[in-house]
Amino acid sequence: MNQLGVVKRHIERADAAAVAHLGKLGVATVHEAQGRTGLLKPYLRPIYPGAAVSGTAVTVLLHPGDNWMMHVAAEQIQPGDIVVAAITAECTDGYFGDLLATSFMARGARGLIIDAGVRDVKVLKEMGFPVWSRAISAKGTIKATLGSVNVPVVCAGALVHPGDVIVADDDGVVAVPAADALRVAGVAQQREDLEGEKRAQLAAGVLGLDMYKMRGPLEAAGLKYID
Amino acid sequence: MNQLGVVKRHIERADAAAVAHLGKLGVATVHEAQGRTGLLKPYLRPIYPGAAVSGTAVTVLLHPGDNWMMHVAAEQIQPGDIVVAAITAECTDGYFGDLLATSFMARGARGLIIDAGVRDVKVLKEMGFPVWSRAISAKGTIKATLGSVNVPVVCAGALVHPGDVIVADDDGVVAVPAADALRVAGVAQQREDLEGEKRAQLAAGVLGLDMYKMRGPLEAAGLKYID
Amino acid sequence: MNQLGVVKRHIERADAAAVAHLGKLGVATVHEAQGRTGLLKPYLRPIYPGAAVSGTAVTVLLHPGDNWMMHVAAEQIQPGDIVVAAITAECTDGYFGDLLATSFMARGARGLIIDAGVRDVKVLKEMGFPVWSRAISAKGTIKATLGSVNVPVVCAGALVHPGDVIVADDDGVVAVPAADALRVAGVAQQREDLEGEKRAQLAAGVLGLDMYKMRGPLEAAGLKYID
Amino acid sequence: MNQLGVVKRHIERADAAAVAHLGKLGVATVHEAQGRTGLLKPYLRPIYPGAAVSGTAVTVLLHPGDNWMMHVAAEQIQPGDIVVAAITAECTDGYFGDLLATSFMARGARGLIIDAGVRDVKVLKEMGFPVWSRAISAKGTIKATLGSVNVPVVCAGALVHPGDVIVADDDGVVAVPAADALRVAGVAQQREDLEGEKRAQLAAGVLGLDMYKMRGPLEAAGLKYID
Amino acid sequence: MNQLGVVKRHIERADAAAVAHLGKLGVATVHEAQGRTGLLKPYLRPIYPGAAVSGTAVTVLLHPGDNWMMHVAAEQIQPGDIVVAAITAECTDGYFGDLLATSFMARGARGLIIDAGVRDVKVLKEMGFPVWSRAISAKGTIKATLGSVNVPVVCAGALVHPGDVIVADDDGVVAVPAADALRVAGVAQQREDLEGEKRAQLAAGVLGLDMYKMRGPLEAAGLKYID
Amino acid sequence: MNQLGVVKRHIERADAAAVAHLGKLGVATVHEAQGRTGLLKPYLRPIYPGAAVSGTAVTVLLHPGDNWMMHVAAEQIQPGDIVVAAITAECTDGYFGDLLATSFMARGARGLIIDAGVRDVKVLKEMGFPVWSRAISAKGTIKATLGSVNVPVVCAGALVHPGDVIVADDDGVVAVPAADALRVAGVAQQREDLEGEKRAQLAAGVLGLDMYKMRGPLEAAGLKYID
Repeated sequence: MNQLGVVKRHIERADAAAVAHLGKLGVATVHEAQGRTGLLKPYLRPIYPGAAVSGTAVTVLLHPGDNWMMHVAAEQIQPGDIVVAAITAECTDGYFGDLLATSFMARGARGLIIDAGVRDVKVLKEMGFPVWSRAISAKGTIKATLGSVNVPVVCAGALVHPGDVIVADDDGVVAVPAADALRVAGVAQQREDLEGEKRAQLAAGVLGLDMYKMRGPLEAAGLKYID
Repeated sequence: MNQLGVVKRHIERADAAAVAHLGKLGVATVHEAQGRTGLLKPYLRPIYPGAAVSGTAVTVLLHPGDNWMMHVAAEQIQPGDIVVAAITAECTDGYFGDLLATSFMARGARGLIIDAGVRDVKVLKEMGFPVWSRAISAKGTIKATLGSVNVPVVCAGALVHPGDVIVADDDGVVAVPAADALRVAGVAQQREDLEGEKRAQLAAGVLGLDMYKMRGPLEAAGLKYID
Repeated sequence: MNQLGVVKRHIERADAAAVAHLGKLGVATVHEAQGRTGLLKPYLRPIYPGAAVSGTAVTVLLHPGDNWMMHVAAEQIQPGDIVVAAITAECTDGYFGDLLATSFMARGARGLIIDAGVRDVKVLKEMGFPVWSRAISAKGTIKATLGSVNVPVVCAGALVHPGDVIVADDDGVVAVPAADALRVAGVAQQREDLEGEKRAQLAAGVLGLDMYKMRGPLEAAGLKYID
Repeated sequence: MNQLGVVKRHIERADAAAVAHLGKLGVATVHEAQGRTGLLKPYLRPIYPGAAVSGTAVTVLLHPGDNWMMHVAAEQIQPGDIVVAAITAECTDGYFGDLLATSFMARGARGLIIDAGVRDVKVLKEMGFPVWSRAISAKGTIKATLGSVNVPVVCAGALVHPGDVIVADDDGVVAVPAADALRVAGVAQQREDLEGEKRAQLAAGVLGLDMYKMRGPLEAAGLKYID
Repeated sequence: MNQLGVVKRHIERADAAAVAHLGKLGVATVHEAQGRTGLLKPYLRPIYPGAAVSGTAVTVLLHPGDNWMMHVAAEQIQPGDIVVAAITAECTDGYFGDLLATSFMARGARGLIIDAGVRDVKVLKEMGFPVWSRAISAKGTIKATLGSVNVPVVCAGALVHPGDVIVADDDGVVAVPAADALRVAGVAQQREDLEGEKRAQLAAGVLGLDMYKMRGPLEAAGLKYID
Repeated sequence: MNQLGVVKRHIERADAAAVAHLGKLGVATVHEAQGRTGLLKPYLRPIYPGAAVSGTAVTVLLHPGDNWMMHVAAEQIQPGDIVVAAITAECTDGYFGDLLATSFMARGARGLIIDAGVRDVKVLKEMGFPVWSRAISAKGTIKATLGSVNVPVVCAGALVHPGDVIVADDDGVVAVPAADALRVAGVAQQREDLEGEKRAQLAAGVLGLDMYKMRGPLEAAGLKYID
C-alpha cells in the first residue's frame, strides 16, 4: 500500500450496470446496504449543490502541494471513471482547476473526489464537472515529486481500490468494492423498495414507534413517561 | 438536567402569536432584543439557504451514533413544534433522513435543530423540511440506548427548555424562554422599527459616526487621525 | 504594524484600470501571476455563491467582539474600495449586518473581507453586497475599544496594506500590492491568453503529459508503469 | 439563564463532605455514577499534568476578550470554591494570569475552569493553582462589559449552577448538581468498590468476556470467529 | 475491508527481532526508511511524554460510543502485541481505562493506538501502559454493537493489517507491513548509521548546504543572495 | 513581502541587551507592554514545558512539505538568533529534526518558531533546543522549491521582520520590532515593577474591585447585586 512511483495500467473495473444502479440509489442507501462501511469522512463536500454521480475509481496518491501525478492519472482515465485523489499529509492547496477538468472530461471522467482543495469552482460548475473536496483554495501546486496511480489509497479515512464503485451526492461519498457491486446493488434496491411503503405509512401519521414495534423494547429498556 | 430515560408529555409551549412574531423579526434581531443571549453556536448551519422558521421546542437528548429517541420524540410533536436534538458527546453521524422527516412533517413539525449530522439532504430540501445541523453525513445510527424527550438540553452551547421559542434562519438559531416570548417580541419589534429610520439615513449617506454621535467618545478614547 | 488608535486618511490606492483588469482575471490566475503569494487563507468563504469583485483595500483592525472601528472605517471609504477587516484574536462574532452594509454601499464600497463573522446574510445577498468571512453568526458586538483604520493588517494570514488591490471570488481572496498591480495584471493576462490554447488542446484529448512534455522528467524521476 | 449584569451573593453550596468524597473518586467514576451526564467537553485540558481538585462552583459569565467580571467573581469566592467561567462566544484570549490567581487563592479558591484561555501558566504551576482551559494565550483582555456572577452557565457544553460540585483531574471536568452530591458520591463509591475486585480478576488473566458474561450476547448478536 | 461481526483468530505476526529493531530506530527513521508511508495522522498523541514502544498489531474496529469489541480483542492479544483501534466515525469518547488496561497488560499487550478517547490517564501512566489517542475523555461507552477484530482497518488515516509492526513514540505512530519488516529495518539501520556521521559534521559547524552539496542546485533554481 | 527565491544576508538585529531584558520579562508582559500586538496565534505550543528563550529573528519562508530553505537559513544564523519559519499554506509536516537542530545549535541559534510540524522531539528536548510549533509529526519533507530567507513573513498570524525580537515561553510567542525593543523593554519593566506591589496586596486579601477602584464604574454600568 502507498507504493510511490508506480502506475498500474490495467485494473478491474466494477460492472457498469451495477455502477449505474448504485448511482440511482444514492450514497445513504448504498452505505446502509453494505453494512455501514465504505463512507468517506463527511468533511468532503460537493463544490456545488445537487451534484450526483457514480463511476469506477481511478486512484491517485499525491504529496502535499504537488499535483504532478494528476497528469499521469489523466492518461489512465476511461469513460465512466471517477478520479479518487489521496494526499500523503493533510493539505488544502488547490490541486485541480478548469484545465485539468477539461482534460479529465475529454477522457470521459465523471467527477473527482479529492482529500485536498480545488479551484476555478465557478467554471467547474458551469462545465458540469462535479468535485467533492475538503477545501476550495486558489493556492497552486508544484510538479516535483512522484506519487502513484491505481494503487489502493486511503482517501478521507476510507480505503479505495482502483476499479471500486464510487457513489457521490449531496450526502457525501461512498466506495463499494468492485467485486461486491452487484450484491450491494441488490441489497440496496431491497432497502429502497421497503422505504416506499414505510414512507407512505409515516406520511399517513403512523408513528415509527408502532411501525417498527419499538414500544416494547423501549419499555423493557426502562423508558418512563411523565406528565 | 440531562436525565436519561424520561419522556415528558405535557410541556408549556410559548404563546403562538409571539412565536410567529419572533419568526418574522429573525434571529439577529431577536438575539439582540433579549440581551445577546440564547444563541446556538454558529457551527450549526442550514442544510439549504433561505430556510427561515419559528416554532416551539420539543427537545431530545441522544447518544453518539444512536437515534432511537428520535422516534420517541416524534410522538410528542404537535403542530408548530421544532425538534431540538442534543447529543451527549460530539458526533457527526446522520441521525435523521427523509423517513423521519416524513413522520415529523405528518405530526406538524416545522423543522429540526440538531447538534450532529443529517442525510438525504436533497430530498429534505425538496420536501421543504428545514434542518440546521453541524454536519451532513450519510453515516447511519443504531437504536440501542435510552435518551430523553422534553428535558432541558444543552444544544450547540445553549440551554433549551421544552416549549421555548426557536427562531432559525440563514444567520443561525436562537432560543427564547417561553415565559419571555411576548416581552422579547415587543423589544425586538421596537429595534426593528428604529432600524428602518437608521437604514434610511445611512442609505442617504449619513455616517454612523454622526448618527450614533460617536465622534466625541472616539476622541475621548484617544483616536488620532493622521494624513 | 498593528498600531492602535490611529486612522490614516490619505492612502495611495492602486490604479483603477489595473484593479478592474485583475478582477476580470480572477483570484486563481492573479495568485499564480504574482508568484503564488498574497492569498488569504481558504477558510474565508463568500456568504453567497457567484460573488466576484475587485477593489482597493481600506483596512481596519478590530478587537474580539468589538466593531466600533467599522463606523470609523466607513468614513474613509471611497467608491471602488473593499474593506478588509482583521481581528486581534480569533473570533466568530457577527461584526457586520445590513445597516453597516447600507452605509458602506452609500459610500461606494464594493464588498467586505472579514476574518470574523457577519449576520443578516439573506439581506446582504438581496442587497448584492458581497462578503467573504470566516463565519456567519448573529452574535452582536460592542463598541468599547479603539482599533485602527488604514494601517497594514494581517487578515486571514496575509499582509494587506491600505490601497492594495483585493480580488475576491468563489475561489477565495487575494491581495496585490498597489505598486505591483499593473505588472501583475500584465503577467496574469499572459497566463490567461496561454490558457485558452491549452484548454483547446486538452479538450481535443491531448494529454498534459504530452502538452507539458512531462514524460521525460517522470521517467527520469523513476516512474514505473506496470500491468 | 444568561442574565447579564447580575451578581448573586448567596448560593447553596454542595455538602463539603460529599465534595471531598467525589474528589477522591475522580472524574471518570463520578461521571459514570451519575448516569454519564455532567461532563464538560474534553477540549478543556489541565494546564499542567497531575492536577486534581474538587470544590463548589462560583460561576461567572464573560464576554469575548473581556475579563472584568473575574474581579467581581473574586469577591464571591469562599474557601473551597472553584470558579467556573463561561464566555458568550468562542474565544481563546488569556482571561486569567498570576495576579488574579493570587487574589483567588487569597480568597480560598481551589482552581479555575474556563472555556477560554489563560496565561502565566508557568507561574500558576509554581503557585499550585490548577486551571482547566481551552487554550493557553498571552493575549490580554479588556474591562468594558457587564457579565454576571453566580447565574447558571453553559461552560464547555455543560450546564453548571452556582454551588454545584466540580471535580477535575487529568481526565477532564465533571459537574454534579449540589442537591445530588451525596447520592452520587454513594453510587460512585459502590462502583469504586466493585472495580477493585474486577481489577484483581483481570490482572490474574480472567477475560472481560467471561467476567462480564459477554460470550452469550456476542454470539446472539451474530459474532463469528474465523481462522 | 471493514467487515463487521468477524474475529480472526490466527494472524501472521511480523518477525519479533525486526519488531524490536524497528522500535529502537524510532518512528521518524522508520517512516523515512519505508518511503514516507505508513504514518498515522499527527493528531494521535501519547497520553504521557517519553513513551516509546514497538509491537505487532491486533486490530479492532469499533462504532462511535461503543467499546464492546475491546473485550473481544483482549482475548486475541498475545505477548508483544499492540492493539490498534479504529472507529467507524469520528468520536472522542473514552473507550479505554484502567480496567481494560489491566486486562490487556495481563495478556501481554505493550500499548494501545486508538483513533478516539481514553480515560484514567493518570493511572495508565502509573501502570506504564502507553496509549496514543486523539483525545482524553472521561465519557464512557456502551456495549451494544458488533465490530470486528483482526480485520484490516483504517486508523487515523493509515491502513493497518493485523500482524503489522507498530512503532510509536513522541513523534507519533507508524505501521510497517509484516512482510516488509526485515527489509525496512535494514534500510532504517543504514539511515541511522549515516546520521551519526552527518550529526558529527553538522555539530562541527559544517553547513548542510555544503555537506549535501546544495549550493549548485539552489543556484540553478534561481536563488539570489542580496545584501 | 513573500518574495520567493531571495536570501538577505545583512539584517539589522535588535539590541542584544533589550533582547535579554525582554526575555526575562516574558511573553505576557511584553505583549501587554507593546499595546497587545505582535502575538503569534496560540496554536503554537512549545514541544516541552518550561522552555523560555529570547533572540533575534532570522526568518524563512517555506512551501508545504518542503524544507529546502531551512538549510539556506542555517548559514544566515548568528549567535543569539531564533529562526522563525512561515509556510505558504497550512501544513503539519515535520520540517525539522535533530540533524537540523545540531546544525542550528552549532551556528548559535537559540530556538525555532515554526508554523508547521517538527520531529525527533525527544532528542530535541535532550539537546535543550526549544521549538514552538503547530504540530509534532514524523512526516518528512522534500527539497524541491525555492522560498526565501530574511524577508518579512506572516507566521501564525503575526508579521515578523528579520532582526525583530522574539520572546517565547510557556505562554506562547511574541515579536517586537527591532527598532522598538528598548522602548518596549522599558514599558514592560514598569509593568513588572507595578505587578509586584499589586501581587502583595492581592495576596493579603485586598480585592481587585478595590485596588483598581472598579466598584464605581461597575455600578455606573448597571451591575446589580441580589441575594
